[in-house]
Amino acid sequence: MAINSWVNLANNNPVAGFVDLSLRGASQVFFQNNPLTGLMMLAAVFWGSYANENLSVGWGAVLGLVVSSFTAMLLRVDRESLRQGLYGFNGVLVGAALPTFLSHPPALWAYVVIGAAASTIFTLALANVVKTWQVPGSTAPFVFTTWLLLLAAYSFARIPAAAMGPAVLPTPTGTTDIQLSGSIIASILAKNVSQVYLVENVVTGILFLVAIAVSSVRSAIFAVAGSVVSLATTVLLGASGSSVRAGLYGFSAVLTAIAVGAVFNTPSTRVTLYALFATLFTVIAQAALNAALSPVGIPTLTFPYVLTMWIFLLPKANLEPMAHHQPVADGVLNKS
Amino acid sequence: MAINSWVNLANNNPVAGFVDLSLRGASQVFFQNNPLTGLMMLAAVFWGSYANENLSVGWGAVLGLVVSSFTAMLLRVDRESLRQGLYGFNGVLVGAALPTFLSHPPALWAYVVIGAAASTIFTLALANVVKTWQVPGSTAPFVFTTWLLLLAAYSFARIPAAAMGPAVLPTPTGTTDIQLSGSIIASILAKNVSQVYLVENVVTGILFLVAIAVSSVRSAIFAVAGSVVSLATTVLLGASGSSVRAGLYGFSAVLTAIAVGAVFNTPSTRVTLYALFATLFTVIAQAALNAALSPVGIPTLTFPYVLTMWIFLLPKANLEPMAHHQPVADGVLNKS
Amino acid sequence: MAINSWVNLANNNPVAGFVDLSLRGASQVFFQNNPLTGLMMLAAVFWGSYANENLSVGWGAVLGLVVSSFTAMLLRVDRESLRQGLYGFNGVLVGAALPTFLSHPPALWAYVVIGAAASTIFTLALANVVKTWQVPGSTAPFVFTTWLLLLAAYSFARIPAAAMGPAVLPTPTGTTDIQLSGSIIASILAKNVSQVYLVENVVTGILFLVAIAVSSVRSAIFAVAGSVVSLATTVLLGASGSSVRAGLYGFSAVLTAIAVGAVFNTPSTRVTLYALFATLFTVIAQAALNAALSPVGIPTLTFPYVLTMWIFLLPKANLEPMAHHQPVADGVLNKS
Repeated sequence: MAINSWVNLANNNPVAGFVDLSLRGASQVFFQNNPLTGLMMLAAVFWGSYANENLSVGWGAVLGLVVSSFTAMLLRVDRESLRQGLYGFNGVLVGAALPTFLSHPPALWAYVVIGAAASTIFTLALANVVKTWQVPGSTAPFVFTTWLLLLAAYSFARIPAAAMGPAVLPTPTGTTDIQLSGSIIASILAKNVSQVYLVENVVTGILFLVAIAVSSVRSAIFAVAGSVVSLATTVLLGASGSSVRAGLYGFSAVLTAIAVGAVFNTPSTRVTLYALFATLFTVIAQAALNAALSPVGIPTLTFPYVLTMWIFLLPKANLEPMAHHQPVADGVLNKS
Repeated sequence: MAINSWVNLANNNPVAGFVDLSLRGASQVFFQNNPLTGLMMLAAVFWGSYANENLSVGWGAVLGLVVSSFTAMLLRVDRESLRQGLYGFNGVLVGAALPTFLSHPPALWAYVVIGAAASTIFTLALANVVKTWQVPGSTAPFVFTTWLLLLAAYSFARIPAAAMGPAVLPTPTGTTDIQLSGSIIASILAKNVSQVYLVENVVTGILFLVAIAVSSVRSAIFAVAGSVVSLATTVLLGASGSSVRAGLYGFSAVLTAIAVGAVFNTPSTRVTLYALFATLFTVIAQAALNAALSPVGIPTLTFPYVLTMWIFLLPKANLEPMAHHQPVADGVLNKS
Repeated sequence: MAINSWVNLANNNPVAGFVDLSLRGASQVFFQNNPLTGLMMLAAVFWGSYANENLSVGWGAVLGLVVSSFTAMLLRVDRESLRQGLYGFNGVLVGAALPTFLSHPPALWAYVVIGAAASTIFTLALANVVKTWQVPGSTAPFVFTTWLLLLAAYSFARIPAAAMGPAVLPTPTGTTDIQLSGSIIASILAKNVSQVYLVENVVTGILFLVAIAVSSVRSAIFAVAGSVVSLATTVLLGASGSSVRAGLYGFSAVLTAIAVGAVFNTPSTRVTLYALFATLFTVIAQAALNAALSPVGIPTLTFPYVLTMWIFLLPKANLEPMAHHQPVADGVLNKS
């Protein structure tokens, strides 16, 4: 089989090995560990960024992917997690995000290199922190690194913003009269998926779903379910029509549905119900973070997903909250 | 005794058991584990919300209490902490807060149900995190859940805000000429207590103090002390008269005084002095968070208390801060 | 030797011992444990605050240093870390910062006492938290305490702001035409160091470098390197000329360079390269936090350093990030 030949080649040839772990990194954005899935995803990103006349998003993604993976090798990280692409999926998103929101002067590419390298260090830093509670860091390093780089752009004349801000105080933005038709609904459901890579494109979203299904049918089903639940929630609560139609209320919800429903919990009916509630809650977190970040004019990126995923994966079996009626252990004033 | 009969009934009848743990949840807002205290508190909340012509606050509190406790049962949490009401006190506050700051369309009640259920998941998530350092999560789940729901309301046309915002940049708000008389002072001291449940009402505050004393006289004394210290601090520093008179500088200080002085430390003179300093610091944290949240237009809720409580309970005996002059353990670059 | 005599005196005389640990605290701001370094630093701060006609900064620093160290003694902290000055370096910075940004009514001095005492409690609280991941708390307690006190000043009429704010929404502030000459460059390189103590003064910066070199030549070299790298980065990216010339883009970078390059890692070529990248990243973090804090009108203080230091010290050898394709351990829904 072609897959087996590729795995053999990747194991024996360093260049093929680096390509393999980079492609796996591209697939890890959707929680997969599959080079073919990653290749299809990169192709889908290039298609979407070409169609949107911003091909720099595609090139930025590739640059970010390569630099972040290479930085991990320089830091001599654990080989097994390197091979699974766990140091690439934050860098590929940093590389897609910066050309999406910033202008494209030469300095931008240095900025992408700095951001991608930093995302790997952030990944290691966060892995140390969150292992304490047995939850994944997931795309949080992408979010934090990109937030810093985008906020910093306000201060750097050689890195001007493009599709970001302006910073405004939050005001009501919803509507009770969202215009939907069958074709608009289908378009939203696909864009909810494509926006995970910051691309607004129906074909890209469909290719993403196919690429996920190549690796995990259950993940693809939960991606679709997440997209449907987020759309229903926005309609019921009355979110802004233009944002909903652009897929901006769905991409984090899609990730939550896959993460909580198909990846980080053992499948069961209770897990499915829990994941659907988490998906609904992600839409609320998306709306909340839109407002919270408005005064600094930066996008939420996937933080609504990260926040919700943490809240829903942190609860552990056999946990006892601290009682409210007894002294805490070992307080500084209890020292003799 | 009536209490013993009730405890027996609660142990043997599931419905009475659920009522019992719910009432204990209402009492846990003030760190008590006592169904009678909880019953008196709910009555006091209904009185206050009736007097303020916003009875939805009372009904919201009951709905939030029931939903959050029931969610805990669905998640099969530790039975002993369930029985103590540790999964109800965040939900009851979510249920009181949402109708305080938002309008009351039908969708609000779905919003309360979502928020109360989420508060239980948040409680479990935070319990996992903070057990690392042996401090309680306390009302932080209420704060974080409600902040998200209130911020999200900007984006949802079917959940319009009522008594919230508008978002404004912070500007100086204090006064050196606060108008006080004996009766105003008495009113402030009571409202500092009633505002813990988001109710501005003198009778509610007095009933709360009586309800606390039924369960713990020491807690009631520290509640009064916290109220007095917060008022004195605001007058000395020159805080806004209208906020002080509404009890808005006192409710977090009251909680800090009870938590640090009467609940989470073994009583001693040093603990009392430490608690009074913590109470004073809570007033500064209240003022700081008022300014910090001003650009997003949401209230601080009890976060000034939560933040101060954490700062003052995290210090442990026999702790050694890391020295500033030697390499940290096991750094990634020290790998051979 | 004079040093040995002083150490003997400090060990036997309680007053000399308190002076010794206070001076060591002043030196710990730059990661040193040396009373002579601390004495030279305090002298440099007084020189700079006298030259800038704001001598209250010097007196505030001394008051903060004494109060924070004394608070630590009242709390009966670990004696060895007390003697190293680890409870003084946050207080000395609180005491320098408050008179820098606020007016000087009598209430300010009470405010400094409250802040310095709180910084010691914050130091103990944070030490408990960060020991989980084997990184230092460093000047984070100074940052968090001072942020709260400055934000609170908006609400307190008796503590009016002076050189702080106004709160504004962030807008582009950079320039591609920064005016530099040899003497301006030398001035910036020194002010990048002096601003660590919130003082803008060339002589103070030079005295700081000498004081550091008295204790550690390697630290002094990295301080200079950090100053140079931060200046180069701001010029290449196009930061605001007035901020660069005042040293405001350099003080956190200087601290990062010393911390990552000379103190918390074992020296090597790889560590030096890592530290220089961390220094560059600190400039981006500085720019980002300038924008993020703009809507609340408070300064970043040393948080760009603290944040970057944590990101670059948290990665540990032999760390394995959690895989993205398997259930997390012990999830609440996996309970039978």
